Amino acid sequence: MKRLLIANRGEIAVRIIRAARDLGIQTVAVASDADIEAKHARIADEVVHIGPAPATKSYLDTDALVRAARESGCDAVHPGYGFLSERASFAAAVADAGLTFVGPDAAVIDQMGDKVRARQVAGEAGVPTVPGTWEGTTDLAEAIEAAGEVGYPIMLKAAAGGGGRGIRVVENEDELSTDFPTASSEAAKAFGDGRMYLERFVRSARHVEVQVLGDGDDAVHLYERECSLQRRRQKVIEEAPSPGITGAVRGDMAEAAVRLCKQVGYRNAGTCEFLVDDETGEFFFIEMNTRIQVEHPVTELITGIDLVAAQLRIAAGEPLWLRQSDITVSGHAIESRICAEDPKRGFLPGPGKIDHVELPGGPWVRTDSWLAPGSQVPPFYDSLVGKLIVWGEDRGTAIRRAKRALAEFVVDGVPTTTGFLDELLSQPWFAEADFDTGSLERWLEDGARSTSQEGVDE
Amino acid sequence: MKRLLIANRGEIAVRIIRAARDLGIQTVAVASDADIEAKHARIADEVVHIGPAPATKSYLDTDALVRAARESGCDAVHPGYGFLSERASFAAAVADAGLTFVGPDAAVIDQMGDKVRARQVAGEAGVPTVPGTWEGTTDLAEAIEAAGEVGYPIMLKAAAGGGGRGIRVVENEDELSTDFPTASSEAAKAFGDGRMYLERFVRSARHVEVQVLGDGDDAVHLYERECSLQRRRQKVIEEAPSPGITGAVRGDMAEAAVRLCKQVGYRNAGTCEFLVDDETGEFFFIEMNTRIQVEHPVTELITGIDLVAAQLRIAAGEPLWLRQSDITVSGHAIESRICAEDPKRGFLPGPGKIDHVELPGGPWVRTDSWLAPGSQVPPFYDSLVGKLIVWGEDRGTAIRRAKRALAEFVVDGVPTTTGFLDELLSQPWFAEADFDTGSLERWLEDGARSTSQEGVDE
Repeated sequence: MKRLLIANRGEIAVRIIRAARDLGIQTVAVASDADIEAKHARIADEVVHIGPAPATKSYLDTDALVRAARESGCDAVHPGYGFLSERASFAAAVADAGLTFVGPDAAVIDQMGDKVRARQVAGEAGVPTVPGTWEGTTDLAEAIEAAGEVGYPIMLKAAAGGGGRGIRVVENEDELSTDFPTASSEAAKAFGDGRMYLERFVRSARHVEVQVLGDGDDAVHLYERECSLQRRRQKVIEEAPSPGITGAVRGDMAEAAVRLCKQVGYRNAGTCEFLVDDETGEFFFIEMNTRIQVEHPVTELITGIDLVAAQLRIAAGEPLWLRQSDITVSGHAIESRICAEDPKRGFLPGPGKIDHVELPGGPWVRTDSWLAPGSQVPPFYDSLVGKLIVWGEDRGTAIRRAKRALAEFVVDGVPTTTGFLDELLSQPWFAEADFDTGSLERWLEDGARSTSQEGVDE
Repeated sequence: MKRLLIANRGEIAVRIIRAARDLGIQTVAVASDADIEAKHARIADEVVHIGPAPATKSYLDTDALVRAARESGCDAVHPGYGFLSERASFAAAVADAGLTFVGPDAAVIDQMGDKVRARQVAGEAGVPTVPGTWEGTTDLAEAIEAAGEVGYPIMLKAAAGGGGRGIRVVENEDELSTDFPTASSEAAKAFGDGRMYLERFVRSARHVEVQVLGDGDDAVHLYERECSLQRRRQKVIEEAPSPGITGAVRGDMAEAAVRLCKQVGYRNAGTCEFLVDDETGEFFFIEMNTRIQVEHPVTELITGIDLVAAQLRIAAGEPLWLRQSDITVSGHAIESRICAEDPKRGFLPGPGKIDHVELPGGPWVRTDSWLAPGSQVPPFYDSLVGKLIVWGEDRGTAIRRAKRALAEFVVDGVPTTTGFLDELLSQPWFAEADFDTGSLERWLEDGARSTSQEGVDE
């Protein structure tokens, strides 16, 4: 691999350019009209103007991207995250053009992109998924028998329902016996179909994900990341290791992720996402992301392994150079996502021109950002303007350091989430790692209660 | 320790504020007229205007500093490096005011500040110093006997000489027999004193220093830093570990430094500087610095230990919390000192206003700098505007990463040494770690040869 096209923008384009430089690989950036003077375009060895600002006409235009790669003499394409990174057709188009796609084969992207197929593969690899029934029923006796296998508490879901409608939680067989007939008849009335699915209800869940690296034959894990703090399914703060799981869960989950990778002959960096039941410690596979993730740096800081460089080396055909025993964890890392949004106005995105910017620095503070004096935050893309990642010998040190660095993060011209993130990191429940996937939204709602799974009526 | 006065400016003042924050200690900065809007003054919890721009009237004014500490309610003073950091009288004045000095007692600063006394203590602790005679002689037979003990090659130094005058190198007893009488009679003519000292001549030497931490009773080392690349005795690039010593030298030197610390009951972070003979691998103690050093971050990045935080914890009375076996080394770190100097004009300092600045970031790049858009580089102080410290899993990765980060370091308004540093890091002899304390100056002189010890006529 001599020359790499980066089919992305923003902080991840800057990140990929840096990794390529560290490996001695030349870089070609692409830029839409809105990004001609953006940092990723300025620091690459070459920049190709790819089209108008809307992503559909530039960063999502497969033909334009493949043409840019060929015409600029690239031999490989890195898709970053978002945009076309998990589009099997893009991987195929890159390969068809005789270029190396930095990611798995189109077939694997397809397989993992289909949630039902992905869970089937997980099952074949002995990786647990959320227990439930595959077929709906209107028969109480059948439901009671199935519930015994699934385990209480159970969610009753109307087969024909959607968006949380017709869902109720039952705690035991007595409740099921009472509620099932009612729910089924309500569903029949509402949807014209009384069949009900059963699924284990995870009352309080953490979102924990395992980072993996595979070369097609072998695979290793780089332990987990804790990503439970989400707002509207967007992660806000991520950390590694997870402060909320036991050593046994950590080990079992990581091994399960490696089994899944080996099952599909996975080739790339990837992430297996799990739901961890806070009460029982059970973990359930949700999905696999076949690309680099926004929050990858926290894993890098606790393992010392460059994940983007690893993607490039694997894509270039290098067999996996790491054995599992080479991968050790040191200290604690926290990532804060800095967005150009106004927390006081419901996190409304605030595009605009950066008048003044000072990024934090100093010991164990890493800033992955494309901000520079004079930068434009365009209205066309996501509002992530930077990631602040800190490392500390323990979680307490990392939290204090994150707050110190957030205070040094100065941006004039657009609103940012730095103050909100500082407030979040200052919460006693954050310090005690006492949170689940619903905590952040409950906190934002100022104590209003909701459940950990979306759309559930208790 | 609740509130700390930082009796310094520039990048080290920023560094100390960051460490204090990470420990939850409040910070009070001091600023001269020239630094009122400098970064260290802006980010501290409070700033005290300390006096006019010339350092003698501000950063070197003991009374003003002690008064500032008392009036701002501080209970401790960190001296940084340079300025008053190794002035025993300052440490005493701080202690007399009932404040904690972040450093050793005045008596230890005095003892180590006197090079002759320091070497005597080293001898008592079994730490080797450069072999030589303590008293001059005019007698050839006496010189031959002494030379046998010191070991060849030998430098003959006129007792009354100075600044390199009257020094010559002899390789063996034959040369000594021929040269001694000539040298002695020349010295008698030139200085009115024919007595000659003998000292082992280290033809090719590395400057390697050992980082230590002591609490007054116990002491540990944090391995060594390689600091041979110097220009006019100013370090330019530092790295850790040293790529030019064997494991045996590494271990012996580190243990010697710990013995020296224990000998004096050392209490603080400190550095024992050694000259390493590139030919024999012998190492000789030169001096000890009883303060934090500019190049401390390379040690931090390979050990994961915050040295400034360690200084604060030790000064606050905490017994050493690290056993030697807790301290392990991972990977390789390189520091590049960025100065506002023009390499094309003999490294002439270039003060001025910063019009535009972009500091590098991303994986394993640390920037310790006070630069910000609109900053003034005042003409009154040293020209160091930032330090770029990178970590890599091996030295080659660290070198490429340092070059990548230097390329991203953009400063408009004043000249900087980034281009020069990039060129230096690109030299094959740097890649091969084939250098000694004279290499950088020889390279700058475009191949003109000089010896490794200053002022020596071969």
